[in-house]
Amino acid sequence: MRRALLLLPILLLFAANSRAQQSIAERLGYPRDAKLLIVHADDLGMAHSVNVATTKAFETGLVNSGSIMAPCPWLSEIADYARKNPQADLGLHLTLTSEWTSFRWGPVSPRDRVSSLLDKDGYFYLTETEAAAHADPKEVEMEITAQIERARALGIQLTHLDSHMGTLYQNKALFEILLRVARRQKLPVRIAKTWFARTDFLSSILTPDDVYIDRVLDINPSVAPGDWSKFYSDAIKNLEPGVTEIVIHLAYDDAEMRGATFNHPDWGAAWRQRDFEFFTSDAFRKLLQENQVKLITWRELGRLIK
Amino acid sequence: MRRALLLLPILLLFAANSRAQQSIAERLGYPRDAKLLIVHADDLGMAHSVNVATTKAFETGLVNSGSIMAPCPWLSEIADYARKNPQADLGLHLTLTSEWTSFRWGPVSPRDRVSSLLDKDGYFYLTETEAAAHADPKEVEMEITAQIERARALGIQLTHLDSHMGTLYQNKALFEILLRVARRQKLPVRIAKTWFARTDFLSSILTPDDVYIDRVLDINPSVAPGDWSKFYSDAIKNLEPGVTEIVIHLAYDDAEMRGATFNHPDWGAAWRQRDFEFFTSDAFRKLLQENQVKLITWRELGRLIK
Repeated sequence: MRRALLLLPILLLFAANSRAQQSIAERLGYPRDAKLLIVHADDLGMAHSVNVATTKAFETGLVNSGSIMAPCPWLSEIADYARKNPQADLGLHLTLTSEWTSFRWGPVSPRDRVSSLLDKDGYFYLTETEAAAHADPKEVEMEITAQIERARALGIQLTHLDSHMGTLYQNKALFEILLRVARRQKLPVRIAKTWFARTDFLSSILTPDDVYIDRVLDINPSVAPGDWSKFYSDAIKNLEPGVTEIVIHLAYDDAEMRGATFNHPDWGAAWRQRDFEFFTSDAFRKLLQENQVKLITWRELGRLIK
Repeated sequence: MRRALLLLPILLLFAANSRAQQSIAERLGYPRDAKLLIVHADDLGMAHSVNVATTKAFETGLVNSGSIMAPCPWLSEIADYARKNPQADLGLHLTLTSEWTSFRWGPVSPRDRVSSLLDKDGYFYLTETEAAAHADPKEVEMEITAQIERARALGIQLTHLDSHMGTLYQNKALFEILLRVARRQKLPVRIAKTWFARTDFLSSILTPDDVYIDRVLDINPSVAPGDWSKFYSDAIKNLEPGVTEIVIHLAYDDAEMRGATFNHPDWGAAWRQRDFEFFTSDAFRKLLQENQVKLITWRELGRLIK
């Protein structure tokens, strides 16, 4: 008994060290050189067009994960989908911004209790920098917890968390809240090892018990529409071993999306249609096969959380 | 001086009597037998499709009034229109229900201060009867006042008030709140003299100073889609003298509206497209001319309020 007690700290240290040395792929039970990919669609619940395009893409099996915006008007539609498709890998896209000027949303919490999160019109701020500059950390914690509770009350079985427009990665105080809430909820968070170099506070806050992936890829406005397929095809061909999440934005280039994004072509209606076309294509399916890329989900990553 | 004071109550009584005897058409300066019509589109701000179809119909001049739902996601879009078109006859469609199951909204006030207005998911109730059954009158007054304040803060110059799905006409307590708020804001309200017979509390609350119209017409689900034009054409041909408001619902039969109304054909996407087609047609313009119907707005009615 006494000998066992003496050994315990040594065993725990060994376990922690071994976990720290294991890659996330190995912790998931794959070889270290496996190329593992999550194809993740953001912004579910935002608009009908987003919900329909994304759930249609889920049917192909090529897009296999997504995250939901609880403050948005079409939450009920995607919650209904989630209840009918409990196997779907759905997380919460924690939302503290309302970025379209014609079409807006605000908090799940009572407005007067999260006033630091609201612009003069009573909606979330338009940009992540304004949101981060004004946000009272206590109000952020209340609001993101309320978003999680609303999603769960609607029967959505959450597998992960991430942050719309990256607001919760804007500074250390916000990131600490995200991580505290995620640990409390036992949910993995979109965090990539490659971010440690550019964002110094990440590695200081994370512990070997936290689950994070190797890298996150996304397209950006500098890619011309005509180079869309080439960008993504090159990304798949050059995929490094480990766990990668490719973050995409699906919707149709229809009246609703054009109305929402009319003055904002970046992440706009045509952008989302291009993403939809590439990620539901046979060309994408073939690329995954030819490059030995295996799709995994946040649900598998979540199982690593004790 | 003393004689004047003695005469004052008699003069006031005379003025009130004379106002009570005057028809609303006469109070507006028209002959008693004039056929005056407001062509009024409800539900602005609800959806992009509603905003685009309704403002397009305004351009024809044949639809000349509308009311806005302040809690809805597309309020900012219609507020922008209102600021650019200050001549538009726009009122507030006071909203205490959220009737589509896939697409929902909640209060402008802080949620915890109007909890009697909210269903278990934190949105307004689906139906006007549920809303009226649960509503705490103090919370109703706070919420509808907040909706008016939000609309005005966004630069909308309101000309009138009405009640989405008629929730505020469901009982005397709610109607009294609507009238109290309207009098305080010096705005006319959708009230028809023809309603007095079926809703006994109306005439007991109204005074000769209040402004109300003769009748409100709208189509209902018992009219088959093929009889749409006939219903409205007959209504114009048989229009009685006085002030009539015809209440219509405009939108396109597009993906967004079909998504919102998928399980609710009444007041659904196709319904609204039919309304749009009739009320922007040359046939409707001709009917107005042939039947000597003159279009008026709530702005003119509002000028009667002291």
